[in-house]
Amino acid sequence: MASQLKSSFASSLTQRLTVPNDRSSGATFRIPTGKRSFIVKAVQSYKVPTEMAAIEAYPMNGGHGIYSYAKNSYHQGQAIHAVKELIKEEITEKLDITMFPSSDTFRIVDMGCSAGPNTFFAVQNVLEAVEKKYQGQGLDHCRLPEYQVFFNDHSSNDFNTLFTSLPPNRNYYAAGVPGSFHVRLFPEASLHIVISSYAIHWISHIPKELVDKSSPAWNKGRTYYAHAGAETIKAYADQFAKDMDNFLHFRALEIVPGGMVLLTIPGGRWDGDSDYQILPNTLNDLLESCIVDMAKKGIISEEKLDSFNVPEYFPSPQEMEAAVKRNGCFCIERIECLHDEKKQANPKEARAFSSHMRAGLEFLLSEHFGHEIMDELFDSFTRKIEENEVFDLGVAFKLLVVLKRNESLLIN
Amino acid sequence: MASQLKSSFASSLTQRLTVPNDRSSGATFRIPTGKRSFIVKAVQSYKVPTEMAAIEAYPMNGGHGIYSYAKNSYHQGQAIHAVKELIKEEITEKLDITMFPSSDTFRIVDMGCSAGPNTFFAVQNVLEAVEKKYQGQGLDHCRLPEYQVFFNDHSSNDFNTLFTSLPPNRNYYAAGVPGSFHVRLFPEASLHIVISSYAIHWISHIPKELVDKSSPAWNKGRTYYAHAGAETIKAYADQFAKDMDNFLHFRALEIVPGGMVLLTIPGGRWDGDSDYQILPNTLNDLLESCIVDMAKKGIISEEKLDSFNVPEYFPSPQEMEAAVKRNGCFCIERIECLHDEKKQANPKEARAFSSHMRAGLEFLLSEHFGHEIMDELFDSFTRKIEENEVFDLGVAFKLLVVLKRNESLLIN
Repeated sequence: MASQLKSSFASSLTQRLTVPNDRSSGATFRIPTGKRSFIVKAVQSYKVPTEMAAIEAYPMNGGHGIYSYAKNSYHQGQAIHAVKELIKEEITEKLDITMFPSSDTFRIVDMGCSAGPNTFFAVQNVLEAVEKKYQGQGLDHCRLPEYQVFFNDHSSNDFNTLFTSLPPNRNYYAAGVPGSFHVRLFPEASLHIVISSYAIHWISHIPKELVDKSSPAWNKGRTYYAHAGAETIKAYADQFAKDMDNFLHFRALEIVPGGMVLLTIPGGRWDGDSDYQILPNTLNDLLESCIVDMAKKGIISEEKLDSFNVPEYFPSPQEMEAAVKRNGCFCIERIECLHDEKKQANPKEARAFSSHMRAGLEFLLSEHFGHEIMDELFDSFTRKIEENEVFDLGVAFKLLVVLKRNESLLIN
Repeated sequence: MASQLKSSFASSLTQRLTVPNDRSSGATFRIPTGKRSFIVKAVQSYKVPTEMAAIEAYPMNGGHGIYSYAKNSYHQGQAIHAVKELIKEEITEKLDITMFPSSDTFRIVDMGCSAGPNTFFAVQNVLEAVEKKYQGQGLDHCRLPEYQVFFNDHSSNDFNTLFTSLPPNRNYYAAGVPGSFHVRLFPEASLHIVISSYAIHWISHIPKELVDKSSPAWNKGRTYYAHAGAETIKAYADQFAKDMDNFLHFRALEIVPGGMVLLTIPGGRWDGDSDYQILPNTLNDLLESCIVDMAKKGIISEEKLDSFNVPEYFPSPQEMEAAVKRNGCFCIERIECLHDEKKQANPKEARAFSSHMRAGLEFLLSEHFGHEIMDELFDSFTRKIEENEVFDLGVAFKLLVVLKRNESLLIN
C-alpha cells in the first residue's frame, strides 16, 4: 500500500511547483496580460526530496515543563511586543484591501510559530489591524471577510501543545501547517499576510564546509561564527542568503498581489556599525565558551566540539535588502533596525536568560553532546551570564522587515 | 494581555456564525438571486462557549506504542479499504467539477482523522478520484487545481504523530485543524469534499439522563445501550440526532454548492432488520460484561459502573436519512449498508481485536476507572472474545452515506 501511495503522488501538482536555485531548464514564464487572476506556472519539476533532505529541524522544547518554550519565550514575546505598534502601523498604512475580493477568506500565517503562546499575540495584533482596516471601509457586515490563521513550524514542533492552548474565544479559524518554510507550504496565491517572529534566523542546515577539516571555513574549536575567520562567516552568510532566496521565492508563489510579509529578526545591525554589541551574539559567545571549557576539561571530546555549530545567523538590513532585490517579487515597505533601552545587570535574570537559550537550543545540543551534560552546561552558562553582566555589555537589536507582494506576475 | 486578547475576540466574525438549535432570534435568511457566490449570513450571535462546553473529546491512544491507534487501527483501515471503490465511483459519477472555478485550490478535509495512517489512505483515495475527473476534462495543465488537505480532530488528538508520519511525497498541501466537528471549523464555502471514516458515531457527550438516578433513562448496571431499556436507547439516539444536526448545519456553511460529504459509519443496519448481529455492538456487549464482572468482584464500585457509558451510537440508514432531510441543504446521493463476509473464528485475532478496542477506548475508560485496571480489563476482554467466538456470531456492518451540497442558498 505504501509504495502504491508513493507512486501515485508523482502527479500533476508536484510537477508544477518551482525551485529557485535550478532555473536552467526553463525560461522565465510570463502570464498573458489582461488576466487579473494570479497564476504563476513553473517550467521544470519540483524536487521536493532533494530540497527537503538538506533541511534540518531544530524544534524548541515542547510541552509545559521547566525548560519548555511555552514557559521560556518571554524574551521572544517582548520582541513581538516591541514591534507591535510598528506592525499595526505598517498594515494600517500599506495594506490595500481593495486589491482583495470582498467576502473572501482573509488568510494569515505565522511561520516558525513554535508551541505558543507568543504566536497567539503576534497573530492577534495583525488581526486587529486588518479588522480595523475593513471596518474603516464602511463595508456592509456581510461583505467583511472571515479570517483563517495558519500556524506553521517544522513537523517535529509540538503542535499538540500549540493546539490545546489556542485562545478559546478566537475570532478566526485555526489550522496548523507542518513543514519547513524553506519549501512550498501553501497553494498558489492563497495567503494575504505572512508574519514570522524570531524564526528566519535559523538557517536550514549547517554548510558542510564548516565541519570539513580540509576547508578554510572549518570552524575548529568554535561553535559559532562571531569570532571565526572570514571564510566561516561567509559560509554562514551564504547559507542564510540561499535560505532567504528559497523563503522569498516560495512566499512569492503563495501570497496574493498586495499581500504583505512582516518579519521580526533578532540581532539585526547595520553593516559597518560597530557601536553596538549584539545580544544574541553575546549570549552565543558565552555559550560557546562554556562548551569550549567542557572540551578542555575532557567532558566532551575535541571532535564533538569541532563538529558542532549553532545554526543561527543574524542578518544585517543590507543582507535582507539584497535578498529581496534578488527575488524581485516584493517591494520593501520598511526595513528598520530597532534597539532596546540599555539594560541594568540583574543577576536574577541570568537564570531566566539561560533557560530561554535552553528552550531553544537543548534539542540540538543534546542530540549532539548527549542529554546527560545539559544541566552542567546550562549551570555554567548561567554563571557566565552573571559574571559577565551581559546585560551591561550592550543592547539587544532586532530587525523589522516589511514587504509587499508586487502586482507583477513575473517570477524569475 | 490575556484579558485584552479575550475581549478583542468579541468581534465581527464570531457574531456571524449560526447555531442550528437556537433559531428563535431570527428568520431564515435568503440571499438575493442573481448573485452566484455562496454567502449565508446569520442573524443571531454564535454561542461558542456554551456549545463547546458540552462537547467532550475521546482521543484515540496517541504515539506509536503497543496500544496506540497508529498500530491498532487495522480494522478501521479495512473499512476504508472496503468502501474505497464505492467512494471513487461516487466521486467519479456525482462530483460536478464544472461548478468550481478552475485554477482554484481544491480543498478536502478528513473529519475525525485520528493520528494516522488510515487517514492518509482515505484522503489519497479521494484525491485519485478527483484528479482523474480533472484530467478527464482535458484541461490545460495550468488550469488544474492544487490540492489542500485538512486533517481534523479534537485538539487533544495526537497531531504530533500525525504530522511526523505524513506521506513525504504527497501531492497536496497538508494542514491540521483542531476542534470538534460538532462546531464550525472552516470559513464559508471553502471546502469541496468532506470525508469522515469511523468517527461520527462518537456522540458529542453522554446525555445527563443516562446518569441521573431519577430518570427513566438511567443506565444502571450497564455501560451501553444495546440491552438497555427504551428510554436509554432513545437518549442515545436523540443525542446522535442532535449531533448530526450540528454536523450537517456547520458543513452546509463550509461546503461549496456541489461539494460532497462522504461518511463511513460502523454498525449501520436497516431498522427492523434483525437478521444480523452488529459487530461493534457485540464487542461493546462483551466489554460491558467485563466491566460488570469487575464490579461484581468489587474491583470497581457499583457507582463507577453506573456512571459510565460508552459515547458511541451506531445509526441506521433511516436515522441518517432523517437527519439529512431535517437539515435540507444536501441531496442524498447514496445510503448503503454494507456487510463483510462472515468470518471464521480465529483466536489469534482476539488479542488484536482487544487492542483495537483499547486504542479507541482506553483514554475514556482509564479517566473514569483508573489506569491501573486497564490491563486486567483488557485481558479479560480478550478471553471473552476467544470464548464467545465473536467472529462467528455475526457479520460486521458499515454504512456509507454520500451527500451533495445543493445549490440553494437557503439555510434554515
